[in-house]
Amino acid sequence: MKAVILAGGSVAVPGDLVSDAAQAGDEIYRLIEELYPLCRSISGDGVRETFELVNRVVPVRRTEVPTGTEVFDWVVPREWNVREAWIDAPDGTRVVDLRDSCLHVLGYSTPIRARMPLSELREHLFVHPDDADLIPFRTSYYHENWGFCLARSTLDALPEGEYDVCIDSTLADGSITYAEAFLPGSSEEEILISTYSCHPSLANENVSGIAFLAVLGKYLSTMRLRYSYRFLWSPGSIGPISWLARNEQLLPSIRGGLVATCLGDRGHMTYKQSRRGDAEIDRAVAIALRDAGAEHEVRPFVPLGGDERQFCSPGINLAMGALSRTPADEFPEYHSSADNLELVRPDRLADSFAMYARVIDIVERNGRWRNTNPKGEPQLGKRGLYRNVGGGSSQEAALLWVLNLSDGDHDLLTIAERSNLEFTEIAGAADRLRECDLLVPA
Amino acid sequence: MKAVILAGGSVAVPGDLVSDAAQAGDEIYRLIEELYPLCRSISGDGVRETFELVNRVVPVRRTEVPTGTEVFDWVVPREWNVREAWIDAPDGTRVVDLRDSCLHVLGYSTPIRARMPLSELREHLFVHPDDADLIPFRTSYYHENWGFCLARSTLDALPEGEYDVCIDSTLADGSITYAEAFLPGSSEEEILISTYSCHPSLANENVSGIAFLAVLGKYLSTMRLRYSYRFLWSPGSIGPISWLARNEQLLPSIRGGLVATCLGDRGHMTYKQSRRGDAEIDRAVAIALRDAGAEHEVRPFVPLGGDERQFCSPGINLAMGALSRTPADEFPEYHSSADNLELVRPDRLADSFAMYARVIDIVERNGRWRNTNPKGEPQLGKRGLYRNVGGGSSQEAALLWVLNLSDGDHDLLTIAERSNLEFTEIAGAADRLRECDLLVPA
Amino acid sequence: MKAVILAGGSVAVPGDLVSDAAQAGDEIYRLIEELYPLCRSISGDGVRETFELVNRVVPVRRTEVPTGTEVFDWVVPREWNVREAWIDAPDGTRVVDLRDSCLHVLGYSTPIRARMPLSELREHLFVHPDDADLIPFRTSYYHENWGFCLARSTLDALPEGEYDVCIDSTLADGSITYAEAFLPGSSEEEILISTYSCHPSLANENVSGIAFLAVLGKYLSTMRLRYSYRFLWSPGSIGPISWLARNEQLLPSIRGGLVATCLGDRGHMTYKQSRRGDAEIDRAVAIALRDAGAEHEVRPFVPLGGDERQFCSPGINLAMGALSRTPADEFPEYHSSADNLELVRPDRLADSFAMYARVIDIVERNGRWRNTNPKGEPQLGKRGLYRNVGGGSSQEAALLWVLNLSDGDHDLLTIAERSNLEFTEIAGAADRLRECDLLVPA
Repeated sequence: MKAVILAGGSVAVPGDLVSDAAQAGDEIYRLIEELYPLCRSISGDGVRETFELVNRVVPVRRTEVPTGTEVFDWVVPREWNVREAWIDAPDGTRVVDLRDSCLHVLGYSTPIRARMPLSELREHLFVHPDDADLIPFRTSYYHENWGFCLARSTLDALPEGEYDVCIDSTLADGSITYAEAFLPGSSEEEILISTYSCHPSLANENVSGIAFLAVLGKYLSTMRLRYSYRFLWSPGSIGPISWLARNEQLLPSIRGGLVATCLGDRGHMTYKQSRRGDAEIDRAVAIALRDAGAEHEVRPFVPLGGDERQFCSPGINLAMGALSRTPADEFPEYHSSADNLELVRPDRLADSFAMYARVIDIVERNGRWRNTNPKGEPQLGKRGLYRNVGGGSSQEAALLWVLNLSDGDHDLLTIAERSNLEFTEIAGAADRLRECDLLVPA
Repeated sequence: MKAVILAGGSVAVPGDLVSDAAQAGDEIYRLIEELYPLCRSISGDGVRETFELVNRVVPVRRTEVPTGTEVFDWVVPREWNVREAWIDAPDGTRVVDLRDSCLHVLGYSTPIRARMPLSELREHLFVHPDDADLIPFRTSYYHENWGFCLARSTLDALPEGEYDVCIDSTLADGSITYAEAFLPGSSEEEILISTYSCHPSLANENVSGIAFLAVLGKYLSTMRLRYSYRFLWSPGSIGPISWLARNEQLLPSIRGGLVATCLGDRGHMTYKQSRRGDAEIDRAVAIALRDAGAEHEVRPFVPLGGDERQFCSPGINLAMGALSRTPADEFPEYHSSADNLELVRPDRLADSFAMYARVIDIVERNGRWRNTNPKGEPQLGKRGLYRNVGGGSSQEAALLWVLNLSDGDHDLLTIAERSNLEFTEIAGAADRLRECDLLVPA
Repeated sequence: MKAVILAGGSVAVPGDLVSDAAQAGDEIYRLIEELYPLCRSISGDGVRETFELVNRVVPVRRTEVPTGTEVFDWVVPREWNVREAWIDAPDGTRVVDLRDSCLHVLGYSTPIRARMPLSELREHLFVHPDDADLIPFRTSYYHENWGFCLARSTLDALPEGEYDVCIDSTLADGSITYAEAFLPGSSEEEILISTYSCHPSLANENVSGIAFLAVLGKYLSTMRLRYSYRFLWSPGSIGPISWLARNEQLLPSIRGGLVATCLGDRGHMTYKQSRRGDAEIDRAVAIALRDAGAEHEVRPFVPLGGDERQFCSPGINLAMGALSRTPADEFPEYHSSADNLELVRPDRLADSFAMYARVIDIVERNGRWRNTNPKGEPQLGKRGLYRNVGGGSSQEAALLWVLNLSDGDHDLLTIAERSNLEFTEIAGAADRLRECDLLVPA
């Protein structure tokens, strides 16, 4: 990354991070490797350990919300922790063991220590619906149960007989935990970037999001920024609901934001618009995707999916979309042991990082300006803004577009949309025009 | 049809009539068979007999508007009645006779009793422009004339010589007649469904419309409805103009409506939007057609066509579109003896009936609601609205869509449009959410 | 052209000029032939001679703006005149001579009289980048220089040795010159049609524009017009800037206008919208192009191109688009000796003339009317507006469209757009309806 203040006096902008993306992708991948084995759920010590690892990358503040706290229509559930979970076959062989994979235990399983025939045990065994070799990911947060997840091929090989079963878990009053990193900017207006921290060993969905936010926060923390940035890691659904309920006073200052998930898989970038659909963040992401020139998809808001459901509920209605690679539940490895460290790759994480850098750059640099010389074109030549008489490069076109539409009604994003020029060219033209006083704030 | 109050306490809605469509189609067809032979025009006793048959199905109130009455820019014309009309050939054979087909006499023919050579008679004989075997339908309401319509093949076979000609008609002061059926609902707001009653033996255009309204009215009359419904049968153009001129005080309470014609032919459903283009009725019909899943067409308003010209004149501007199968003058049998009882079929009438039932159901159930728990999603599980943790059926999607967009700005139609879910699913979700107080009227 | 007052009492309208287009095309071409050889620049006597020729066709008022005058952000440059310019080869042969082509001298060349080797001279010789046989057109208005333009084939044949070089020019205080023709109409609102007068022997770009305005002005000057028309010939960029700076008080009365250039080449008509995009002039041109039925193109405004950049600068923002055949710099002969009298053809000039006549006709006849009989349709038959009972010609459709949409909100252009009927049919229907008092001004 370039120094914040460059030699020429110009300030580094988030768009400069595009050139740091490969390095950032490697850092994110290494953090994913560390986070992957931890047994997370919507509460518990696995989450706290996770936040400690994140805290080494970017400083976070942890909040505990006690069991029983009312948060809007919900009540914070009991805290769950699991120490061991295994099944021993009639011959004493340990056929399922939490130590092999966090996925083996049904999330929020109540404790059990029993001996029972396979026929009875079967009702507590869950397999993947499609693939005999994969362990599925299953939970039962709001309906008490216990169980194990395992490969159908393992299950099919189990002989009849009596099995020893152990889940050493506690489901008791405690708290859920969320973490925030806050980067103050010049303005009190904030950009909120949120991800969910409740999934155990699922590398793309959503260990990638947890690690991505940490590294993005670290890089941004060295820049002088216009807006303040808040990164939020919290358990899915109950996490954003708790955070929103406790931070209602903050909401008016949230200019916009993104829900960041599934950032390392092989798919192209996918953006799901905010409920507003035409918020600045929606337009910024659309232009960032366009300017990057790679395959991508933009989808309208639907009230199904991830945590954007809470941020975009009608009484909250934040300008927050979801920017991911393949959305959760659309890649075949979703919610199974195949969502592992092979699925996420540093170069794809880097690509996602570069896209977030572009988006943040646009949000940081966007604005409405007023042409101080609005009658006729100003003479660019005498200000050294025309390299030659004639010509007509895209740089000169950018100058003319910015001058023509800077009447106070059009922001730079609109100018980038209308001109079909890259946002960085438009923003660069605006910088040059401000330097010679041809633009002032609108 | 289900009972109005169902066992479970839920009220029958017009959408339930979809399951009665086959039976209704048969009833409509039988009424068409009775109405088809009557000699109707824009006035006269054939119309009154027609309304008596309609009255046996659904009670109607008949209004007579006297000749000479000024109605907006028009004056009600004289009343026309015809008792017999025939041509006898030189050898005494009756070659044309009103008793064979109402179409044989030019509508509004003045009386004549004369003997004349074929050459002179020819000027009063009208044939079909394209098909030698069809009798055309012709009228001369506003220019006095007499004449006969016959097949070109009949005409070509006539020998030269002296013919006896008789039209025993009267064109004299009297009145035009229209009929209304009124079904009061909970609200004084009305839905107006109109058709024209002036055509003689033309089964699709528009005996089908006359019979359709009668049977639709009969079925709706047994339901407890939100809006009041008014069915209007009147002669084309002069009928709606007369009704509008005499009922101007009613117009503000007309929420919307449909002109119903040509409901039994082989074509798919066609909707011509109201002049407003985006009225609730326009959106309701579009969604009903979409949800039915069959081929159909939606066209913008044009000030050409049928009685919607009057309802959508600029000083009236009711939210009325025209919902038909093949629009008049676009099917080859139009205005000829081929528009007969073979052309209209019970199953097509049933299909049209089902579509009207869908539309009325949407209008009845549409509305704006307000989510009482707008911050974050409400917890559906504790209210028994989630069948399982996880899942994701369209029923659950409908609940989330309704909750998300019920901010007072979006009606259920909008939610059906945006979600691409069937209106009945959306309305059903709204019902369930109201039952547990998650929605209140906006 | 028809007489202004036709026999039947109806007034000739600009649309009638379509039938004069062939004759007008010939007149424009003959004027181009006279104007083509003159050596024009952004100032100087060649421009004044040009305006004298224009003045013979339509009376113009000439304005001189002195060197040094501040016009918005610009300062009027010195005046340039050139008397002779030539190069003599070592053997005394005159290898380049202004008398052969105005293009041979670099525009705004400073004077020089010198003897120098070919190697030194080369730095002042400009050739066409693509075609060895063409003389390019080059200028250096704002950077002092001298030079010659010649064919690369000529240059390649020059032997080494000492050359005599002469440019007998003056670059001195003086003025730039623009010309206006003003045709007063009933209204003080004006239509402004502008073209640039600064190019030497380039027949299409833009001698065609200079001549086109003269002949169009001549034809319009014989008509009784609703709006006033102002034709402006001025040097590119500095001309409109000067005119705008000196006529700011006029701008509020400019209803709209066109920049007219490149009107004789083989391409189809191309319209570049005004910055407003939906101004009456934009909609009028779109309908004129549609009604003409020939291939054409409509493009959104971009702040690159010709003098529309000044008229559409944000502080001016006139409703002015650019209506041309192939836009400058998109035809291969652009800015070279191939843009000559062969490139422009009378029939293409005639086609352009007819299109301008259509546009002006639409602007002149457009308006908002109010149907005096808005409830139901008025009875057209009793007013002789229906040729027969029945029927349904486009003339009758036009009557119904005008009646239906004349509620004060829709102008005739909108009705032409919505009905897909020709504007002349719509305007003709409005004329007939006004005659029988069915329309009054809105």
